[in-house]
Amino acid sequence: MTQADTEPKVSLKSLEQFCRGVLAGCGADEATAAAAARAMMHGTRFGVDSHGVRLLGHYVEALVGGRINKTPKLHTIGGFGAAETLDADHAHGALATYTAMERAVAIARQLGVAAVAIRNSSHFGPAGAYALEAARQGLIGFAFCNSDSFVRLHGGASRFHGTNPIAVAVPVAGQDPWLLDMATSAVPFNRVLLYRSLGNPLPESVASDAQGVDTTDPNETEMLAPLGGEFGFKGAGLAGLAEILTAVVTGMRLSFEIAPMMGPDFTKPRQLGAFVLAILPEAFGDRAMFNDGMKRYLEALRNSPARSDATVMAPGDREWQIAADRETYGVQLDPATYRSFELLATRYGVPLPTAAINS
Amino acid sequence: MTQADTEPKVSLKSLEQFCRGVLAGCGADEATAAAAARAMMHGTRFGVDSHGVRLLGHYVEALVGGRINKTPKLHTIGGFGAAETLDADHAHGALATYTAMERAVAIARQLGVAAVAIRNSSHFGPAGAYALEAARQGLIGFAFCNSDSFVRLHGGASRFHGTNPIAVAVPVAGQDPWLLDMATSAVPFNRVLLYRSLGNPLPESVASDAQGVDTTDPNETEMLAPLGGEFGFKGAGLAGLAEILTAVVTGMRLSFEIAPMMGPDFTKPRQLGAFVLAILPEAFGDRAMFNDGMKRYLEALRNSPARSDATVMAPGDREWQIAADRETYGVQLDPATYRSFELLATRYGVPLPTAAINS
Repeated sequence: MTQADTEPKVSLKSLEQFCRGVLAGCGADEATAAAAARAMMHGTRFGVDSHGVRLLGHYVEALVGGRINKTPKLHTIGGFGAAETLDADHAHGALATYTAMERAVAIARQLGVAAVAIRNSSHFGPAGAYALEAARQGLIGFAFCNSDSFVRLHGGASRFHGTNPIAVAVPVAGQDPWLLDMATSAVPFNRVLLYRSLGNPLPESVASDAQGVDTTDPNETEMLAPLGGEFGFKGAGLAGLAEILTAVVTGMRLSFEIAPMMGPDFTKPRQLGAFVLAILPEAFGDRAMFNDGMKRYLEALRNSPARSDATVMAPGDREWQIAADRETYGVQLDPATYRSFELLATRYGVPLPTAAINS
Repeated sequence: MTQADTEPKVSLKSLEQFCRGVLAGCGADEATAAAAARAMMHGTRFGVDSHGVRLLGHYVEALVGGRINKTPKLHTIGGFGAAETLDADHAHGALATYTAMERAVAIARQLGVAAVAIRNSSHFGPAGAYALEAARQGLIGFAFCNSDSFVRLHGGASRFHGTNPIAVAVPVAGQDPWLLDMATSAVPFNRVLLYRSLGNPLPESVASDAQGVDTTDPNETEMLAPLGGEFGFKGAGLAGLAEILTAVVTGMRLSFEIAPMMGPDFTKPRQLGAFVLAILPEAFGDRAMFNDGMKRYLEALRNSPARSDATVMAPGDREWQIAADRETYGVQLDPATYRSFELLATRYGVPLPTAAINS
């Protein structure tokens, strides 16, 4: 919506190469560059552009400044049985969380279910990327994190929780996974910024002024509302669940203790936590029964009657459609991101992403 | 709200004795009577009256009719490591789910995290009762179930999911647990029935007519909306998570395949599934760190500024207040429940609950 038609569409492949090249150029080790690029590409591929490649310049600043460790030594510091704690040594959150999910998947293959708590991580981008990784390997995956405060409590009048996402992905035999990746606020703060620049009113019950009173004026918006409007205690409770698993279980910072993502300080690690969980469906019964159940459930869901002005979709269906389109035709970068890419290309001597063949 | 002032308040203790007596009177074994009474008392104690002792007559009908097994033999039929599958032999859902949570807690003490899938269960009442049981023992507990279809999909025009609750409870050292027990619809269907009888309009975006179009008229209401209003894809996604864990992982019935709770058939088992998960906080780090974190988090939350017309509370705070009041002063039964109790008292020769001492 903010995209001008002047930028050409670029291929996802060249975008990922560009991200990896720039990250390596600023000194990130190979594992960091690969994981951070992969997570951003999840965002860009699935249309979650707020958590896509537009973050590249931000991550470079955090890596160069020292907030994120360019050459971290991740190591297991605790846990037993099906539980493990990973100290990420202030790694990029994508490296930390992909690593944690790999461990959770490996343990769950042995023990049916596994959870990994992550200490000393950093911004991990799209939560769905890590849940999806479990689903790609045949397991049900969960990913949680917290983030700096933007969201009021139900009835609250100050920023308290972050947008604290919850992501879950479920494997579907022969199909793309079921994928839920939701902020526990109704909308992300980027939406407010977008509406501000467009001069449009916000939807009802998603944002509040400085007194915590709902407003549809993006210029009056001081904080976000928890998911649920009048029933926002549910959204706030889900945000609390993410907060407890990622900050309390790990001993990391609570949302209101986290240094602002956008600085000004890019030198100090933010001490973020995160939490992932993996469940092996066949630990509970026959895998064919599970596969048949998912198929029957999704078939019924997708064929369920829709309102005359709407369609029904399974979680992730919209994202898989966008991914298919962008795989084929490439993606158009917004002008601000494109300009930042030009600067990064020059600084690190990395060729700009190239046009998609089919665009 | 529907209560007349003619009924006296009765003590929680005598209510639980009455429930156990009636359940034993209709032939339920001791474990069934104890578990079903305990779950109903959770609902009544915490003000979740829709899932409280008003269900007693319903459960008697299901036990006498054969839908629920009066003398079930619960047994583990699968799983490995931290995963287990319990066949509940068509037990009362409360017996099935308390038993499953006991197993999850025991396994999580050994392995840090554990999940138990339940097959051949029945209506389990308030999901929070089972999550709370884990928290009472020092673990983080999760409980999920599905139920017969009442809730449309986002954009949908027919009943698809049940109100599919998600409950989570977290232990807090020296305090009552943090407790989130939420339907994934905005409101329960009982709320619609209540507003119908009161002649009041419903809140916006919680109910739909036969075409799936939102309505505030309780008489036009044919289905519930998923939590989130305009962002109902989140509520529908959470309902889907509960559905997948409880019906697909277990191989039990999907919401739209479940026989209606209210009959007419009370002879056939409904083949419901459920799913519980327990996490041992100290598996991931120092217990004192976790306890301190919960204390710091809740202190900040409860002291967070409120809107001028509102208060802020942690999940469960309202329920613990109601419980304290009802423990002291007893609870007033609604007239319909009281009348059904008079019939059950006569039929099974069980004395009616007695007045609370302090009422």
